[in-house]
Amino acid sequence: MLQTENYPSKALRDAVDAISCLPGVGHRSALRLALHLLKQPADKIHHFASAVSGLADNVHYCKTCMMVSDGDKCSICADQRRDHSTICVVESVRDVMSIEATGQYHGVYHVLGGIISPIAGTGPSDLTIKQLKERVNASTEVILALSGDVEGETTAFYIYRQIQSSGCKVTTLARGLGFGDELEYADAITLGRSILNRQEFKP
Amino acid sequence: MLQTENYPSKALRDAVDAISCLPGVGHRSALRLALHLLKQPADKIHHFASAVSGLADNVHYCKTCMMVSDGDKCSICADQRRDHSTICVVESVRDVMSIEATGQYHGVYHVLGGIISPIAGTGPSDLTIKQLKERVNASTEVILALSGDVEGETTAFYIYRQIQSSGCKVTTLARGLGFGDELEYADAITLGRSILNRQEFKP
Repeated sequence: MLQTENYPSKALRDAVDAISCLPGVGHRSALRLALHLLKQPADKIHHFASAVSGLADNVHYCKTCMMVSDGDKCSICADQRRDHSTICVVESVRDVMSIEATGQYHGVYHVLGGIISPIAGTGPSDLTIKQLKERVNASTEVILALSGDVEGETTAFYIYRQIQSSGCKVTTLARGLGFGDELEYADAITLGRSILNRQEFKP
Repeated sequence: MLQTENYPSKALRDAVDAISCLPGVGHRSALRLALHLLKQPADKIHHFASAVSGLADNVHYCKTCMMVSDGDKCSICADQRRDHSTICVVESVRDVMSIEATGQYHGVYHVLGGIISPIAGTGPSDLTIKQLKERVNASTEVILALSGDVEGETTAFYIYRQIQSSGCKVTTLARGLGFGDELEYADAITLGRSILNRQEFKP
C-alpha cells in the first residue's frame, strides 16, 4: 500500500491531494493521473490548469434559467426560434445537455440547481424555485423533468403545489419501458405504470 | 449521447476537453468531473489548478537517481543511513514509491523513466541507462526491479549486457507464487519458476 506520507516531492503530494478530491478518484488513481500529467510538457500542464481555472473565472449563469452560460443570457434563452412559453424544469446543467442532445425539445429550461433531499440537507430554499415562480405566469406549460426516484417525485410535487395557482399546464416526463427494454427484466413499478398509462397503438 | 458541440459555455467545454485528456477519463466522466468542480467555491477551483500547475513548476528530478524530488537531490540519495553501494533499477517514479512502501529496501534507486518497447517506440537511448552506467562502477550490487513481461525482461537483459563488465553483482526480483496465492490458480510459467527456484524451508 502507498502511504500518503511517502511522497518524494511536496508539489507531487499537493497535486495528488487535489486530484483525489474529485468524485470517484481515490489516492491511487490520483497518483496515476498526477504522474501522467508530470510526464507531459510544462505548457500542456499549464493549459490543463488554466482550463480548470476557467471554470471559476469564465463560466457565468443565465439570469433567466440559471443554465451555465458564456454571459448573462444563455444561448437557449437568447434563441428567439424557441418556444419561450414552455419551461422544462430540470435538476442540473447536465440534464439540460442530455435533453438538448435528444433534439426533441424546443422550449426553454429552468435549472433548479439540485433536488429536495432531507438526507443531503437540501431544502426548497436552496433551489431556484422562487425564480421559477416568477417565470410561470408568462408561460403556458411547465414540464417537470425530474428523476423518477423519491427525491425527484417529492421535488416535483412541491413545485406543483407552488405553481398550480398560476393556471399554467403542468406535465411530467412519460415513464415506462425503455426503448429496446425486454419485458421480463422490467421492474414491477415501471411495468405497472406502463400498463396504466398505455397508449394507442399507431402502426 | 452527449455531443461535443453542445456545450453551453466555452469555458466548460475547454475544461472538459482538458480533463478528458487524462488516461482512462472519457468525455462523459470529464463532464461529470468538470460539473463537480464547477459547484465548488472559486478558491477551491483555483487551489486545484495551482496544485496541478505545481507539477510543471515545482517538481524537480534528482540529478543522481532521476527520482522526483523537491530539489536537485532526492531525500533517498541525501540519506546517509542508506546503502549507496546498492542500486535498485526501476522503470518509474511509482515503482520507487511502491518499493519504499514495503519498508524492506535500504539501498538507493535509479529511475529509467520508461522501458524498452519497440511497439511504443521507446529505445535504450530514451532511458537513463547512460547515467546508470556512470554509477555502477562505484556500486557493489545492481538490482533489476523491472516488470515480469517481455518489455521488462528485454530491458533487464539489455542493461545486464551494458553493465556486466563493471564486475558488480547484478540481481533481479524473486519471481514466484504471490503471498496468499492458491496453487491451483497460479499460471504455469509462474508455478514452473517457483519450483525451479525453490528455497530452503525455514520454519
